Amino acid sequence: MPPSSKLPVAILGATGAVGQRFVQLLANHPWFEIAVLTGSERSIGKPYAEVTRWILNEPIPPAIGTMIVQPTSDVADVPLAFGALPTENALEAEPQWAKGGVFVCSNASAFRMDPLVPLLIPEVNPQHLAILERQQRERGWPGAIVTNPNCATITVVMALKPLHDAFGVERMFVTTLQAVSGAGYPGVASLDIMDNIIPNIGNGGEEDKIETEPLKLLGQIGDEAFQNAKIAISAQVTRVPVLDGHTAAVSLGLANKASPEEAAACMSEFRAPQIVRNLPSAPTQPIVVRAEADRPQPRRDRDLFGGMGTTVGRVRPCNLHDLKFVVLSHNTIRGAAGGAILNAELLVAEGRVG
Amino acid sequence: MPPSSKLPVAILGATGAVGQRFVQLLANHPWFEIAVLTGSERSIGKPYAEVTRWILNEPIPPAIGTMIVQPTSDVADVPLAFGALPTENALEAEPQWAKGGVFVCSNASAFRMDPLVPLLIPEVNPQHLAILERQQRERGWPGAIVTNPNCATITVVMALKPLHDAFGVERMFVTTLQAVSGAGYPGVASLDIMDNIIPNIGNGGEEDKIETEPLKLLGQIGDEAFQNAKIAISAQVTRVPVLDGHTAAVSLGLANKASPEEAAACMSEFRAPQIVRNLPSAPTQPIVVRAEADRPQPRRDRDLFGGMGTTVGRVRPCNLHDLKFVVLSHNTIRGAAGGAILNAELLVAEGRVG
Amino acid sequence: MPPSSKLPVAILGATGAVGQRFVQLLANHPWFEIAVLTGSERSIGKPYAEVTRWILNEPIPPAIGTMIVQPTSDVADVPLAFGALPTENALEAEPQWAKGGVFVCSNASAFRMDPLVPLLIPEVNPQHLAILERQQRERGWPGAIVTNPNCATITVVMALKPLHDAFGVERMFVTTLQAVSGAGYPGVASLDIMDNIIPNIGNGGEEDKIETEPLKLLGQIGDEAFQNAKIAISAQVTRVPVLDGHTAAVSLGLANKASPEEAAACMSEFRAPQIVRNLPSAPTQPIVVRAEADRPQPRRDRDLFGGMGTTVGRVRPCNLHDLKFVVLSHNTIRGAAGGAILNAELLVAEGRVG
Amino acid sequence: MPPSSKLPVAILGATGAVGQRFVQLLANHPWFEIAVLTGSERSIGKPYAEVTRWILNEPIPPAIGTMIVQPTSDVADVPLAFGALPTENALEAEPQWAKGGVFVCSNASAFRMDPLVPLLIPEVNPQHLAILERQQRERGWPGAIVTNPNCATITVVMALKPLHDAFGVERMFVTTLQAVSGAGYPGVASLDIMDNIIPNIGNGGEEDKIETEPLKLLGQIGDEAFQNAKIAISAQVTRVPVLDGHTAAVSLGLANKASPEEAAACMSEFRAPQIVRNLPSAPTQPIVVRAEADRPQPRRDRDLFGGMGTTVGRVRPCNLHDLKFVVLSHNTIRGAAGGAILNAELLVAEGRVG
Repeated sequence: MPPSSKLPVAILGATGAVGQRFVQLLANHPWFEIAVLTGSERSIGKPYAEVTRWILNEPIPPAIGTMIVQPTSDVADVPLAFGALPTENALEAEPQWAKGGVFVCSNASAFRMDPLVPLLIPEVNPQHLAILERQQRERGWPGAIVTNPNCATITVVMALKPLHDAFGVERMFVTTLQAVSGAGYPGVASLDIMDNIIPNIGNGGEEDKIETEPLKLLGQIGDEAFQNAKIAISAQVTRVPVLDGHTAAVSLGLANKASPEEAAACMSEFRAPQIVRNLPSAPTQPIVVRAEADRPQPRRDRDLFGGMGTTVGRVRPCNLHDLKFVVLSHNTIRGAAGGAILNAELLVAEGRVG
Repeated sequence: MPPSSKLPVAILGATGAVGQRFVQLLANHPWFEIAVLTGSERSIGKPYAEVTRWILNEPIPPAIGTMIVQPTSDVADVPLAFGALPTENALEAEPQWAKGGVFVCSNASAFRMDPLVPLLIPEVNPQHLAILERQQRERGWPGAIVTNPNCATITVVMALKPLHDAFGVERMFVTTLQAVSGAGYPGVASLDIMDNIIPNIGNGGEEDKIETEPLKLLGQIGDEAFQNAKIAISAQVTRVPVLDGHTAAVSLGLANKASPEEAAACMSEFRAPQIVRNLPSAPTQPIVVRAEADRPQPRRDRDLFGGMGTTVGRVRPCNLHDLKFVVLSHNTIRGAAGGAILNAELLVAEGRVG
Repeated sequence: MPPSSKLPVAILGATGAVGQRFVQLLANHPWFEIAVLTGSERSIGKPYAEVTRWILNEPIPPAIGTMIVQPTSDVADVPLAFGALPTENALEAEPQWAKGGVFVCSNASAFRMDPLVPLLIPEVNPQHLAILERQQRERGWPGAIVTNPNCATITVVMALKPLHDAFGVERMFVTTLQAVSGAGYPGVASLDIMDNIIPNIGNGGEEDKIETEPLKLLGQIGDEAFQNAKIAISAQVTRVPVLDGHTAAVSLGLANKASPEEAAACMSEFRAPQIVRNLPSAPTQPIVVRAEADRPQPRRDRDLFGGMGTTVGRVRPCNLHDLKFVVLSHNTIRGAAGGAILNAELLVAEGRVG
Repeated sequence: MPPSSKLPVAILGATGAVGQRFVQLLANHPWFEIAVLTGSERSIGKPYAEVTRWILNEPIPPAIGTMIVQPTSDVADVPLAFGALPTENALEAEPQWAKGGVFVCSNASAFRMDPLVPLLIPEVNPQHLAILERQQRERGWPGAIVTNPNCATITVVMALKPLHDAFGVERMFVTTLQAVSGAGYPGVASLDIMDNIIPNIGNGGEEDKIETEPLKLLGQIGDEAFQNAKIAISAQVTRVPVLDGHTAAVSLGLANKASPEEAAACMSEFRAPQIVRNLPSAPTQPIVVRAEADRPQPRRDRDLFGGMGTTVGRVRPCNLHDLKFVVLSHNTIRGAAGGAILNAELLVAEGRVG
């Protein structure tokens, strides 16, 4: 099931914050090998290390630093590409690469709600990949586009999935406390966020994503593309002075009652299908439920399982709905680059790519 | 209505974080004069400046710094006292002072839910002071105890009051992002909160307060003490790396529908009774509703009207209930010392003290 | 000495971070009235509040918010202008305004080391204004340019001045811990400075300024412009996660020995000339020396005297030189807009303008 | 050279901040096995996980969490102990353990300047271990005490060592920017350090250590214990809002001139003796010199080589002395627990223990 030899991959938009996470996570990947890095006009033709304002703590992998940045408009001869482009660029480039025969695992929001594009979390809805045949046929693409959700959506839906399967989630109120790294680089000015909170992200756009993407993720593939799950979601997002790790306070209304103990056990015992569990980037366990009164905490829990784990805590009754809890994951690993890499691994493991 | 000469007042527990705010706000008060400062065993008999680890930015007022700290157990001959004691100490000392003829305006939680003790926000429920006669009669006190609510409760209830009057609040989901100063000094360790969030305060105790105190504040005085308002409240509290200013994300279910515009106008036009508006510490306007997409913010809005103002923003529809918005006020001024001083001013203005 | 009626003034580059401080500090100034705000291409012709990303805590003064932004290239008919332009724009615009008859009090570094331009701190070198006659004559300007020093230079030189006069400073080693507001807006990315230190500013340029500007400030006007003071200065600058207030750790070698007590008294007793002391923005006292072991601290001392004060602490012997101490002032008030306003007030008080 | 089987070790004061680092770093150590954890009165007889307020991001190793905490006064039958006690407790307990036959690798300051106790950095002064024979003989101990320096001293001396050997360091001015973890837990209150700097640590005590410990570290063993190096050092310490990683800005006067390039090469090429290089905790290379204008930075460089590396940057000329640079290392790993473990490894490799 692993590829017989490492697959060459491209990173589209490799110089930005998410692009850097792709570089970091792919530098020693057992299945993939970085073959192409693309960048914007000012970077093309220059060594990656020279044009990148590298912001991660670990240094640029030396072999990558000397690679020459290519134009995003030149589709490379690779089976897989990872998309870290801004939405407006992704709208144009990703279909080009799919048309050129490449499977694009995208982190952009451009095609997330496209009815022919899987919005994928391998532990949650791997069966949604079945739509790819129709995507390729209807669009006439030898390649394809697969997307991962918004970083805050991933955090929340990972916890929702087992509860929805077991008890039927009908209503969710969620307030997020999101890290500054979610805004890219330079992103949030220190003058705006030190000793402060900003009670909005993307002028409501982030809340829209959290209120809609889970419906597709927890929905079904019908005859005519996706049928959304029926959950009423209300979101309030905030930006907080935290570097990495999105925290979400959740209140759920369920179709079938569940005690906090039952809900905690349900999340704790949740397992992905076997094929997903064996992927190189899969977390040891999808969700860890902590019993301590003061967890999860972003600094102390974001790096669980290499940043691919999800931590839940404070599972308790809610005066309004049925359950309350707090859930946390790493927004630029689980919620962005790492999530897209896990998607690509599933494509390979299912024999769709490679 | 102002007292003919300044009234001498005591500050109980003057060396702690809230005690210091009392000192700061009373140092130049037009109606009150600090006459007595009490402290714990280790401070008694020493100058205030010597035993106080002063943490506010402005220096200790010089005339106060040289005052000798008194034992809390010695009831002083003053008409008014401000209580900044820990709950366990307040339980013993505040009734002592009331028995000794002093009106105690307390910030402690000890007697907040006592059916004979007014839990007071002058703009919200000044009529609750009527219970004082029964308190004095039944307890046999020539003085009395008046309390102000938990700091997060005040932030939220200020916004609820006009909405409840106009539209009937039935359900509230609230998530708070609370400043470190709420935990006193030394309080929250920097190792716990830098680059981090703590998703609990007081092991659930803070959430209990936010779920119960508003019911008394928005309730009525019946024949047998207070009748609680009927509102189902669910709270999730978090501690965030912010110095001062509690932020709350609120979702409301109303008995009578209100558009965001109507709700914003209702909050913005809310005014306290005339007697309250004229008090020295009253904010120019109880609630300011901001139209910007990214307000309120703690650092930029907490000092509104000397820290006594409340700022609301992002008033918008809610997918689950009727309305969502964000509300903010200064937790150690409006939510603690300043709130207690406003309570005392109302006692004087009504002729109950002085 | 105050002007008979308020003088109309212009703010050049009014929409940026320093421009906003000028607006804030001039909005209720007793001598000046904001008459003209200039901005860049994208702002011209629009109301100030609409084109300004306002970052200060206090709101935009309403009367200013509706003023229409003018092009910097149109010299206005005002006696005084405050310069908050980037250096490259200041190079062109400030001489234009001086040629047009305006006295420009500039915060830019463009002309600070020009031998005909006073680099002015009113408490330190008011006599340097005498060079203005030569500036006007040689440049043929009816107006003039006066500059204030770099923000970190001001912090340090305020403490150096009395010590240099009394004991002769020969050598200084200084390490600064500078606030993020010094980099303007958006300035320092939160991803770069949270839980972090950056050990450089402007790639060495900030250190150059601190090593050279004090020599002019403490120098003399000779026949041929300025004669620099003879002090060997070595600077190491760092950017720290602090919003406002530059802290400097200083070690001094003196020509004539001074004990820490003598040095502390010398700084504490330092007074500006009478004409300067009476200016509206002058601090109550130039330098306050604190005896506490842990002061000065930026958050607790930066707002001294409306942000125009300088705080010194930890005056003690040095194993290498003679004295060590820590000095602090507010970088965007004393070190930028407030300093330029004090300069303008001195021009008026001396009858040079108005 | 490695021990034939894992050596059982004790951690004295295992529940505190440094004790936790020992637990973390020793949990999977190739040579050592945690056999005994000691703690204070309130912890004795209880499981470690129950009595420890664990503050590290990684969870408590499960096998350690269930160990029962022992009294520090009971000397255990182990060859090695790691000391994480407060100074006053170390003064009593460490000699007891040495008397009981245990080699104590201590992080406390109690015996650092004792002329019979090696103050050890294995890369810097391994030959100082020769004093142990005299220590054992004169004190009559079958065991011994070895100490590691103050955390800021280690950071600085690592860079000084190769420069002192090659060019002779005569004078050093150093300003440190120290992380909050250096103060232990709870340590620095968030109310004291958020948006702030504290320009002192231990009321001058930290500066004393930085001004004296390097003289012993870089000195020689003579006939009568140590002969100090002759270097005049002046230190200014500050506490900054950084979690881990001490930064030091250094200016050096040298006996023999060195260009910045020569100095950078000298530090970069510095290597420990072969026996030290092969120790399990030894960094890949003692010092990495960065060429970038804005390094080292605590968040981005502290974890170099598992937190055992030292990073130097901005090597450049100094107007006063000969050289300036910035140096950084991890204060609780290299500067505390990790340093003590490296010391113990050297004791074993030299055959002194095991």
